[in-house]
Amino acid sequence: MRSHYCGQLNESLVDQEVTLCGWVHRRRDHGGVIFLDMRDRDGVAQVVVDPDTPDAFANADRARSEYVLRITGRIRMRPEGTQNANMPTGLIEVLATQVEVLNTAVTPPFQLDEHGKVGEDVRLKYRYIDLRRPEMIDRLRLRSRITHSVRAYLEDNGFLDIETPILTRATPEGARDYLVPSRTHAGEFFALPQSPQLFKQLLMVAGFDRYYQIAKCFRDEDLRADRQPEFTQIDIEASFVEEDDVMGITEEMIRRLFAEVLDVSLPQFPRMTWHDAMRRYGSDKPDLRIPLEFVDVDDLMKDVDFKVFSGPANADDGRVAVLKVPGGAKLTRKEIDEYTNFVGIYGARGLAWIKVNDRSKGVEGLQSPIVKFMEGVIETLLDRVGAEDGDILFFGADRAKVVNEALGALRVKLGGDLDLYTQPWAPLWVVDFPMFERDDSGRLAALHHPFTAPACDPETLKQNPENALSRAYDMVLNGTELGGGSIRIHDQQMQRQVFEALGISDEEAREKFGFLLDGLAHGAPPHGGLAFGLDRLVMLMTGGRTIRDVIAFPKTQSAACLMTEAPGTVNNEQLKELHIRLRQKASDSTTS
Amino acid sequence: MRSHYCGQLNESLVDQEVTLCGWVHRRRDHGGVIFLDMRDRDGVAQVVVDPDTPDAFANADRARSEYVLRITGRIRMRPEGTQNANMPTGLIEVLATQVEVLNTAVTPPFQLDEHGKVGEDVRLKYRYIDLRRPEMIDRLRLRSRITHSVRAYLEDNGFLDIETPILTRATPEGARDYLVPSRTHAGEFFALPQSPQLFKQLLMVAGFDRYYQIAKCFRDEDLRADRQPEFTQIDIEASFVEEDDVMGITEEMIRRLFAEVLDVSLPQFPRMTWHDAMRRYGSDKPDLRIPLEFVDVDDLMKDVDFKVFSGPANADDGRVAVLKVPGGAKLTRKEIDEYTNFVGIYGARGLAWIKVNDRSKGVEGLQSPIVKFMEGVIETLLDRVGAEDGDILFFGADRAKVVNEALGALRVKLGGDLDLYTQPWAPLWVVDFPMFERDDSGRLAALHHPFTAPACDPETLKQNPENALSRAYDMVLNGTELGGGSIRIHDQQMQRQVFEALGISDEEAREKFGFLLDGLAHGAPPHGGLAFGLDRLVMLMTGGRTIRDVIAFPKTQSAACLMTEAPGTVNNEQLKELHIRLRQKASDSTTS
Repeated sequence: MRSHYCGQLNESLVDQEVTLCGWVHRRRDHGGVIFLDMRDRDGVAQVVVDPDTPDAFANADRARSEYVLRITGRIRMRPEGTQNANMPTGLIEVLATQVEVLNTAVTPPFQLDEHGKVGEDVRLKYRYIDLRRPEMIDRLRLRSRITHSVRAYLEDNGFLDIETPILTRATPEGARDYLVPSRTHAGEFFALPQSPQLFKQLLMVAGFDRYYQIAKCFRDEDLRADRQPEFTQIDIEASFVEEDDVMGITEEMIRRLFAEVLDVSLPQFPRMTWHDAMRRYGSDKPDLRIPLEFVDVDDLMKDVDFKVFSGPANADDGRVAVLKVPGGAKLTRKEIDEYTNFVGIYGARGLAWIKVNDRSKGVEGLQSPIVKFMEGVIETLLDRVGAEDGDILFFGADRAKVVNEALGALRVKLGGDLDLYTQPWAPLWVVDFPMFERDDSGRLAALHHPFTAPACDPETLKQNPENALSRAYDMVLNGTELGGGSIRIHDQQMQRQVFEALGISDEEAREKFGFLLDGLAHGAPPHGGLAFGLDRLVMLMTGGRTIRDVIAFPKTQSAACLMTEAPGTVNNEQLKELHIRLRQKASDSTTS
Repeated sequence: MRSHYCGQLNESLVDQEVTLCGWVHRRRDHGGVIFLDMRDRDGVAQVVVDPDTPDAFANADRARSEYVLRITGRIRMRPEGTQNANMPTGLIEVLATQVEVLNTAVTPPFQLDEHGKVGEDVRLKYRYIDLRRPEMIDRLRLRSRITHSVRAYLEDNGFLDIETPILTRATPEGARDYLVPSRTHAGEFFALPQSPQLFKQLLMVAGFDRYYQIAKCFRDEDLRADRQPEFTQIDIEASFVEEDDVMGITEEMIRRLFAEVLDVSLPQFPRMTWHDAMRRYGSDKPDLRIPLEFVDVDDLMKDVDFKVFSGPANADDGRVAVLKVPGGAKLTRKEIDEYTNFVGIYGARGLAWIKVNDRSKGVEGLQSPIVKFMEGVIETLLDRVGAEDGDILFFGADRAKVVNEALGALRVKLGGDLDLYTQPWAPLWVVDFPMFERDDSGRLAALHHPFTAPACDPETLKQNPENALSRAYDMVLNGTELGGGSIRIHDQQMQRQVFEALGISDEEAREKFGFLLDGLAHGAPPHGGLAFGLDRLVMLMTGGRTIRDVIAFPKTQSAACLMTEAPGTVNNEQLKELHIRLRQKASDSTTS
């Protein structure tokens, strides 16, 4: 029905006849002539409709915003002075000979270029309008190119695209499952998978050797952060591999992706141990675009007459660390107060600081509410952090966990606020994770999942589980975890030992993961893999601000779709077939 | 960890050292030497382990069926007389220098080459074993190549891969939905999509112009036929297109797919109207590999003294048709009885037949229980069907629906039983479907779905809905519907008219499809598309016998996964969070 997309038109086509199909982006009447900006997924082109072509003119005259038109006309250069260099098609226009109204449109709920004036709820309700914005179309188009590039790379490297079930059993990630009542098995439920983890391991047991899938995953969690109830993973697993194999293949995949899609050449990814990342950045996903690092000063603070510092400095689980911000001495009191509130979100009970105005004046050159407590150690401290005039030093002093989270978050926030970035893209690998962490009840919990292989033998694991490292690796980009994976356990004795450390009884293990354990017993190869969060990767690559910007039909924070009004009520007949009933009448139900 | 896959070894590698990783497919001890057939996803290679290498020998000696080994050795030609020309690696063997046991294996539930001796339930329970069979690996590998080829073609043609939600609202296909209780919206439920139909139409409204997705779909139906509760579609939609555009693009896609993956060059697909297909083959998905066609003889049977024929011949909804089978006169009485039982499945109350032994003898040369009733018309009938000596004629006489189904099924069965195929692949398009059919209650129902565009204007539709044709098209291959689609309604007046014909009130339409209707009101382009059943396509292309052969982890006829034991019970706490309770105690539940 068309000869060209609107955005493809340019001065090389002058004098050619073209046929365009698209939407009325804008309409202006000027000097008895109608100007239509016609929009399709490739861009916008200006169409001029003259009263000399009365049929075309009459149809153009009917056309309103977002009408769907088909236009035939001849390309010509725009008159001198009306050319628009900011617009890809800004040098030319189409003089219409035919205008056909393919469909009308009611008045849109908002104008595309005024989308910022309406709430996100309106934009989600009329998602098909919001998706018309060029940046939304471009992001989803880039998403398609990204998955295509990833697939091509993985296919080239012998990975087979294999689908795993959506209607399945609970998986080992431990978040809350979405459940699906079974009609044919009364009282029983499917779970939607939180990941294809167990299936991909079984595909390795079956000998597929290299598997990938761009897979939908589901978690019924409260969506405090930028999360969605359904999200997409690039899921990868391979047999007869070690860490370097998986990391090498996937690093190359990301590097090729950035080159192909963004024309960006990423460096080799540095590797950092989890321990170093926590020590230097307070985070297991440090944003290395920001040149700030923590400096530990516990030793200096053990004996100061300031409990806020000396307490944590002497505690086993305490930490006192300094974050030096070059040029930060210019921060106002108000700004510092705001940062103090900010670290409060992460549990810090305050934010001590020292402005270094003039080091040559000694303590006199410092400005700080706390410097008086640390006169004996201040010079050593300033030397250790390499303080220079104009710097500000922020202190974190608390349990190490709080210091890491609060000062780590502050570091990221300062990086953005003060534009400290040294590079646009900073990828890295974080490795040598602990196998376990203690949860709030003091029990050991798996830092990744219970099928992650330890980097030691079963006996060592048994002796000292808390010090055991895992064979896990996370890929981090600009402070975001792009993906994580590990070499898995393929040895049954090791698997038993890990369950024992986690306090999982044989019975519980069989009940939850029996089919995987059976698989491991039937000739499991050494194997490992990785899963990338596709939504987040696309968001980073397209400059979206939330993952909702890169998902065609996302859900709200309360896990609802405002466009389709899902979830919705169902009739009693349906529930009866599924052998369930509501705990309260639907009419009493509250919608949060 | 390896240098080659087992199946890659050949005589060009003689004298090279290789390292293989894989499974012990077979082990034989012969003349003090151990022979191991090592298997990986690419094939099997013979490894010889000599007592001269004692460490290797000791490990090989431990190895049992399905142990996982890593073997290093040197390639050599097999001794004269022991070469195996039926095996791709049959000319060479590997003389092992190192054998490492990477993992042990318990005794497998069945030997791979004896899988036929165990029931499908055992193979589904130990799916990771069954998947080790080379034909299973090959089918799933081919599936991966098929999706890759399809994706490449669609990307090349400007289609964007866009994901649509899994947690959504009921869709318009009308089968039973899988439901997912919402935790955050008490008493409400998501539905899993039966197709992305409404979303892809809204993507057209949004201006994405060309969309595709390889999408999981869900139907909670009784699985009489070869169906799965979750299945996969190649889903395609485009804007500003007409029938020929969609059919052209998708036909080319399938033709390219067959060329790339199977090295098969398909012809241009013929097009046949629905009416012709029913008349000639009694089916809207005729298998054109089989040269048999129905011949109508109603006119001849109106006055015969045989109610079984004259009744349907005189009834408005009756049909009397002949299926001539060349060479069929050799069928035994027992075989004919079996075919009579077979058509009974489709509602036929008998199967009349005439064997043409010797036409030169007139009625004397015919053998038949019924020929006595039709002496006046028999010669006309024989001439009309072009009967020759050795033929058998089968008769269908009943309501047209029964004749079409019974004789149509018989035609397909005879094609297979007598190997009547004239070609390996017979694709076609079926077009000009009726818009509606009467359901059992006499109401009009959509033959496709209520968004399919009619081939007439709204006024004509209103006047005579039963005669209206739709703008739908089905792609058929070897008697299987590969895919179906249509040009959609983009005009609101037309949409209202179709709902009216279907007896769907405005209120019901708004309740069910309100968001789509809103979308259509906001500037919907003309659009249409098609969806292919991927599982069935792969089954046909790989020679699988059921779609379970081309799905990694399929479910049983009662919609259960025997491997993971899904669905399963959940605890009361989980149900409480979801605001539901069981209608009966789980302990009373029956598993069908």
